[in-house]
Amino acid sequence: MKVALADILALNDDELDYLKSLGYEITTFNTFDQYTEPTDVIVGYNPPSEAIPDGLKFVQLLSAGFDHVNLDLYQDNDITIANGKGMYSKPIAEYTLAHILSIYKSIPDYRSQQDFKKWNRLDKNKSLDQATVLILGTGSIGQETAKLLSAFNATVDGINTNGRAIDYFNQCFPTTSLDEIMHTYDIVISILPQNKATYHIMDQEQFKRMKNDAVFINVGRGSSVNLDGLMAVLDTNLCAVVLDVFEQEPLDPKHPLWHHPKAILTPHASFESNLINTYRLNIVIENLKRFAHNEAIINKII
Amino acid sequence: MKVALADILALNDDELDYLKSLGYEITTFNTFDQYTEPTDVIVGYNPPSEAIPDGLKFVQLLSAGFDHVNLDLYQDNDITIANGKGMYSKPIAEYTLAHILSIYKSIPDYRSQQDFKKWNRLDKNKSLDQATVLILGTGSIGQETAKLLSAFNATVDGINTNGRAIDYFNQCFPTTSLDEIMHTYDIVISILPQNKATYHIMDQEQFKRMKNDAVFINVGRGSSVNLDGLMAVLDTNLCAVVLDVFEQEPLDPKHPLWHHPKAILTPHASFESNLINTYRLNIVIENLKRFAHNEAIINKII
Repeated sequence: MKVALADILALNDDELDYLKSLGYEITTFNTFDQYTEPTDVIVGYNPPSEAIPDGLKFVQLLSAGFDHVNLDLYQDNDITIANGKGMYSKPIAEYTLAHILSIYKSIPDYRSQQDFKKWNRLDKNKSLDQATVLILGTGSIGQETAKLLSAFNATVDGINTNGRAIDYFNQCFPTTSLDEIMHTYDIVISILPQNKATYHIMDQEQFKRMKNDAVFINVGRGSSVNLDGLMAVLDTNLCAVVLDVFEQEPLDPKHPLWHHPKAILTPHASFESNLINTYRLNIVIENLKRFAHNEAIINKII
Repeated sequence: MKVALADILALNDDELDYLKSLGYEITTFNTFDQYTEPTDVIVGYNPPSEAIPDGLKFVQLLSAGFDHVNLDLYQDNDITIANGKGMYSKPIAEYTLAHILSIYKSIPDYRSQQDFKKWNRLDKNKSLDQATVLILGTGSIGQETAKLLSAFNATVDGINTNGRAIDYFNQCFPTTSLDEIMHTYDIVISILPQNKATYHIMDQEQFKRMKNDAVFINVGRGSSVNLDGLMAVLDTNLCAVVLDVFEQEPLDPKHPLWHHPKAILTPHASFESNLINTYRLNIVIENLKRFAHNEAIINKII
């Protein structure tokens, strides 16, 4: 049984031996876009989008999102695909807390004072204790983020399609409630996947509804934010925006957001972690074991 | 019954009415160092250090530390003193998490990249998940910090005089174990009070024992750190130090630490919070109620 693994997965000898003991013959490869070698399993970010390698039965994605995958092609060929749900939940939740706390504790402003050896209390730090937070998207990253925020005694509500209750959230509302509740939150975090329903869900009107000193964070997909709408109100509304994702990546160097004093931008890097390989392999190895044993695959999307 | 309150305590009408209903006649004052008006209670930072106002029976401090108070004078005059333990636990714990996460998520480095419109993943972010943390001092601030760190799945050990077990800590060690265990932690946080036993407990030898990529944070008292010892090893050891307190405050503008690339300095401001008045009044009002009703005072130090 052949498995082709993305070469970013640095397996140690124990992990390689274990996969061999399951009956796998292992190849590593850089990118699978044009991969044509016969194989039973592919583990990577971008599986082939046009022609399917002979014998392919299972694709394990290394991304949580799958908007870039030609699902019809795989469905027509009866190939199982699992996504990387859970691989990035912890680092992205930590990134989100890091940026909220950096803003709430005025870390950049204190840093500027230090440059001038200035000993001066700014008296504008905020507490996350008792803050109200709305998370758009209640999947695994949303849940991990809600869990961390709750430890600080923030009240965390969630938005999902039908408002169903989800662990770690105080309460959840359906997407249709958004206009009505947006004005009540200190912090709004978008962790939405890319699809028609989430396209530009955060537009100028929505940003205008937010509290004037609110923080907005996007760690989901760039397509959920209408950047022009955000730019139109950012001078006068909101206290800060933290964006890790954009409709066009990299963000155009000419875009005025780069140097807007309220904008904190990172290059789609919120998932970065010294543990990233561990997080990925936890799911990859579990699913390769399940596939070899003919057991139900976790994170199955088709 | 007279109470003299520090004027930084901004009581609202409900709170004033409540204190009046307890039988208090309320005066506010800026600083109590030289206060000589007859009063039953003083609530402030610095109670009189030489002469005691007529009728004084109870002093509620607004600080957790009481190293600045002439305790003998009050003890000799049979006056009860309570400290502000718990007033600052939440903001200081949040400050500590904010700075750890800012370092772990490379926020200042990403900020510098943004200045140059540079889209580049740094691939050096760390996870707090699975990190090991040692907190020197297991009082209320230490416990609150341990609780938050544990929510991130860090392993948090504590140091106290005899190594007694404390809630929220994985395990606690006596101060005598410090030399032996110091080399095992990713993060070391000092939240020690100022006294003979804690004086320069973090010296050059102790900093040399720390992991080479470790972070050190001091939010207790400046006297627990030998700054010369720290300066002697900082070029080659540790990854970052976050200091909010110093033996001499303000820190001398000539001190080389101000511009050391590994140093993050704030002006004894970790307690700042929009909720600070609420946190203070929670304890002040509770103790004024207890004093009026002749019940046991909380946070009693003498």
